[in-house]
Amino acid sequence: MPDFGKRSIELHRKLRGKITIESKASIRSRKDLSLFYTPGVGSVASYLAKHKKETDALTWRGNTVAIVTDGSAVLGLGNIGPEGALPVMEGKAMIFREFAGINGVPIVLSTQDVEKIVVAVKAIAPSFGAINLEDIGAPRCFEIEERLKRELNIPVMHDDQHGTAIVILAGLMNAAKVVKKNLTRMRVVIVGAGAAGTALANLLRRIRVADIVILDSKGIIERGRKDFSPHKKKLASFTNKRRIVGDLYEALRDADAVVGVSGPETMKAEHIKLMGKNPIVFALANPVPEIYPEEARRGGAAVIATGRSDYSNQVNNALVYPGIFRGALDNKVKRITDAIKVKAALSLAALIEKPTSECIIPDVFDSRVVPTIASAVR
Amino acid sequence: MPDFGKRSIELHRKLRGKITIESKASIRSRKDLSLFYTPGVGSVASYLAKHKKETDALTWRGNTVAIVTDGSAVLGLGNIGPEGALPVMEGKAMIFREFAGINGVPIVLSTQDVEKIVVAVKAIAPSFGAINLEDIGAPRCFEIEERLKRELNIPVMHDDQHGTAIVILAGLMNAAKVVKKNLTRMRVVIVGAGAAGTALANLLRRIRVADIVILDSKGIIERGRKDFSPHKKKLASFTNKRRIVGDLYEALRDADAVVGVSGPETMKAEHIKLMGKNPIVFALANPVPEIYPEEARRGGAAVIATGRSDYSNQVNNALVYPGIFRGALDNKVKRITDAIKVKAALSLAALIEKPTSECIIPDVFDSRVVPTIASAVR
Repeated sequence: MPDFGKRSIELHRKLRGKITIESKASIRSRKDLSLFYTPGVGSVASYLAKHKKETDALTWRGNTVAIVTDGSAVLGLGNIGPEGALPVMEGKAMIFREFAGINGVPIVLSTQDVEKIVVAVKAIAPSFGAINLEDIGAPRCFEIEERLKRELNIPVMHDDQHGTAIVILAGLMNAAKVVKKNLTRMRVVIVGAGAAGTALANLLRRIRVADIVILDSKGIIERGRKDFSPHKKKLASFTNKRRIVGDLYEALRDADAVVGVSGPETMKAEHIKLMGKNPIVFALANPVPEIYPEEARRGGAAVIATGRSDYSNQVNNALVYPGIFRGALDNKVKRITDAIKVKAALSLAALIEKPTSECIIPDVFDSRVVPTIASAVR
Repeated sequence: MPDFGKRSIELHRKLRGKITIESKASIRSRKDLSLFYTPGVGSVASYLAKHKKETDALTWRGNTVAIVTDGSAVLGLGNIGPEGALPVMEGKAMIFREFAGINGVPIVLSTQDVEKIVVAVKAIAPSFGAINLEDIGAPRCFEIEERLKRELNIPVMHDDQHGTAIVILAGLMNAAKVVKKNLTRMRVVIVGAGAAGTALANLLRRIRVADIVILDSKGIIERGRKDFSPHKKKLASFTNKRRIVGDLYEALRDADAVVGVSGPETMKAEHIKLMGKNPIVFALANPVPEIYPEEARRGGAAVIATGRSDYSNQVNNALVYPGIFRGALDNKVKRITDAIKVKAALSLAALIEKPTSECIIPDVFDSRVVPTIASAVR
């Protein structure tokens, strides 16, 4: 897609930013100034200092989400820093506005130090109704999210983990229906133990999928391995009950589904051929998937999903985060729990009445998506 | 103004926030998504990671200012915290938009610890083209501003210091013309050694006003006193060359101008009667001034200014900060220097062709104000 890229750069240069801050009313007279600013606003300030709980009702905070990144894992581009991350966060802010009527404020950070990130986000938190962590690399993202969830009383969600996991889970639910299997009894292989893979493993565990195998760059995660960071240790504790060891070939033998959340072109038709009957293949690396749909089909894949918009079944987390935050803000939800995530996935999946191999996930422009997800958040 | 207050609270409750984030374009198709977001934005991200200097040109950053407060000195209300501060910061954001076309992002902090504030603002700085510090109490504001100016390469300005000082200086320049005195040879008394008083003393020194006397709550600042914080020690080093001691009565004897930036009703007609010929009285505490204009006039004041919109000669920093930041962003100015501040004050004063006792400061709705100030910032 070099063409999209070039046109996108031109468009960004022309627009000089994709979002703006606008006033809800104009200031044309001294009276306007006196009501929106001093002296009138002094009464609002005093009132809110005494009635803090009403801040969401009298300011923009109740409809405003910070989109926070340290630029360490931007799209598939890796650690490109705050400047490179900014247009991506602005894109998310556009989507928040266009799809869910939310004010999204891009916050790109100059630090990748966990402690400083936690201090900074906690410091600015009273400005926002919720925090959307974004494009922060694993394993740092786990500790940052855990600490912020514990230490703040507004919703904090790392979208690369949970937004992605929710869409994948919805897709797997419908894919299972297409191949007439029971998801909880399927063997599911996750390729990639980063943000999305880890969150997906947790959600699959939550709905009691019995046989989950997850791989990192060194192969199958198995509790006998000695090289684990804390989050992989936790993964090892509840995945891979058959205690298999080895590489992707070993993992895929008789598997019902494989979810690639790793990197480009790591699978071939031969891999898919090792899988069980009617295999489900989600190849979500973007823009170049783990395996292209044509190749997966040659391997016998029955249902295929990618992260790309030019194939059917696009796993796009823009399907989820606008609705999750819409629901959290509207219902004053303080934590996006696993129960909420599963409910969101179920609701999203249920929007497809009769799933087929070419249609397991709703379109991002389906106007039912945001309200459906939002109403799952309570 | 209880009426303004009540109506303002009602209006804020109705609006649920005075500002919103809007998209510059709508997202209606997959093609739109591909250009504004993935995959197209990936090319913009990679490009900016390599060409960081172009970030202002391809994102909203070049037109975006963070309005940062710790809620410790909000309007005249004191230390009311982040919730109370938020509607005030939103009001500033409205003014930024309406008067100068700038995106102002309210950032209210949960901490009043200097170190944590510096860490937080430095962490979020790559998101913004400039930092407007606001309503942070003295003396903490001095250290925070100094450190951020030193450690960031974008403009940082504490408006309560410099915005206010610039408008006061412009007003004094024109008031001097009205009473036909030379400002540099005037005796100027500043009542209040907080953010505004300190910044004004510095600016008056810069333009070589020889006789500046400044008072804090304990009386005239004089280098013999032993109770000084660092910023007062610095004030003592260049003010009060006659080394007078005592209270406001002592300070005002034969003074040409008094600038109150302290608190309500600290002066009476008797004070003004002690002053020299045709005294200039700026009573800027808000909403209740140090002395009401009627009373000041009884004391013989020749030119009177307040912070209120219901008297003539309103010293309103909304006259300055929109233009200062407009100019800084447009001209890629990295520091708002004293030279820039003096130039801004001169330009603002010059907008009044023939100053009179009733008109020394332009109206905040005068459309020449923002471009005039902005062009002083280079």
